[in-house]
Amino acid sequence: MARKAVVLLSGGLDSATALYWAKSQGYEVTALTVRYGQRHVREIAAARAISRRAGVSRMEVSLSLPWLKSSSLVDRKQELPAQAPGRIGKGPIPTTYVPGRNTVFLSLAVSLADAQGARAVVIGSNCQDYSGYPDCRPDFTRAFGTVARLGTRRGAQGRPICVLAPLERLDKKGIVRLAARLHVPLELTWSCYRGGLRPCGRCDSCLLRARGFKAAGRADPALERSP
Amino acid sequence: MARKAVVLLSGGLDSATALYWAKSQGYEVTALTVRYGQRHVREIAAARAISRRAGVSRMEVSLSLPWLKSSSLVDRKQELPAQAPGRIGKGPIPTTYVPGRNTVFLSLAVSLADAQGARAVVIGSNCQDYSGYPDCRPDFTRAFGTVARLGTRRGAQGRPICVLAPLERLDKKGIVRLAARLHVPLELTWSCYRGGLRPCGRCDSCLLRARGFKAAGRADPALERSP
Repeated sequence: MARKAVVLLSGGLDSATALYWAKSQGYEVTALTVRYGQRHVREIAAARAISRRAGVSRMEVSLSLPWLKSSSLVDRKQELPAQAPGRIGKGPIPTTYVPGRNTVFLSLAVSLADAQGARAVVIGSNCQDYSGYPDCRPDFTRAFGTVARLGTRRGAQGRPICVLAPLERLDKKGIVRLAARLHVPLELTWSCYRGGLRPCGRCDSCLLRARGFKAAGRADPALERSP
Repeated sequence: MARKAVVLLSGGLDSATALYWAKSQGYEVTALTVRYGQRHVREIAAARAISRRAGVSRMEVSLSLPWLKSSSLVDRKQELPAQAPGRIGKGPIPTTYVPGRNTVFLSLAVSLADAQGARAVVIGSNCQDYSGYPDCRPDFTRAFGTVARLGTRRGAQGRPICVLAPLERLDKKGIVRLAARLHVPLELTWSCYRGGLRPCGRCDSCLLRARGFKAAGRADPALERSP
């Protein structure tokens, strides 16, 4: 019987790469996508297309958490920050921070993994070249691994659920290179926070992505497709 | 400015006592109630009545997580276990275990606390006289405290969100006594897993509650009210 893993798939570059990494490790993958009112709801269509291309099953969950409106990634009335590329991740936590997002996402993934008998939960967090969110750091992910071990049926039975963040130590260049090696369909991924017809090229997410492709010496195929 | 706390309020004896405990500590409380398809949806009406009586604000969140159907507490087609009182919590994890429930609940509470600037999350877990769920144990709650400290804006700013389980070391007798001391409106609380018009008196939750009242030498006022 194949080892099962639940992969958190937003539809962006990082989570798509994490999904293909899990496949490459032989996991039977269920992708989990969460709607939480994100303004770039377009990423959900990307997640659907990526999981179809990867041939994995996918679950989608909708959360209606009114307090997430404190984030500019949810509240469309707020301006999205547009920083100088060199400043991203260096200042205070940006307004795009969604309170406890990865905590909630990982908890849903752990719940699904415990129900399915999956032995791993995979998240695309990375801590270099990122926006400075506290819930992307390796020590956070490790702490969640302890929660997953202690708070689940599987864990109590001595078969812990591992929380894996395979991109944790990579920068965007490294992620683009790994994605290319794993044949991730990069043209299907969506990173832009704005969620228009084409990537805006100005938000943190677009800037980090562009920097990664440039450093890896590759063109971004998502910029070339027709809207 | 009052210190804020988010209290997970299911509507049962334990969470109502945790809420009144938080009030007694001077916290400005927001009660958080989660609908997750529980068959005893009646507990939500209890949560509403309790928070109104306590004079605290309340938020309610609905989750639709199809995989929770693996639990007999969600899937109405499954039989609820009815064990001999002395056996509760001693055998394997019962079918009423909801995969990762407290992980998901705490994650929602931490997210809300981070958005509200609350410094504590309070849960009514207790590990004596309980049903044997892995996500009620003190080491689980402690591990979640680490997650809450590392994965939030508040934590990153050096103002961690604490996860408090004030009933952790109490048995049901102790909880009933504490509830009486704190003037918890016990007649409003709902513990029965079945969620009929009156408590069934046979499920684990009814049995544990009855044992607690008996040991504390008190009558259970919830059994006396008209349906």
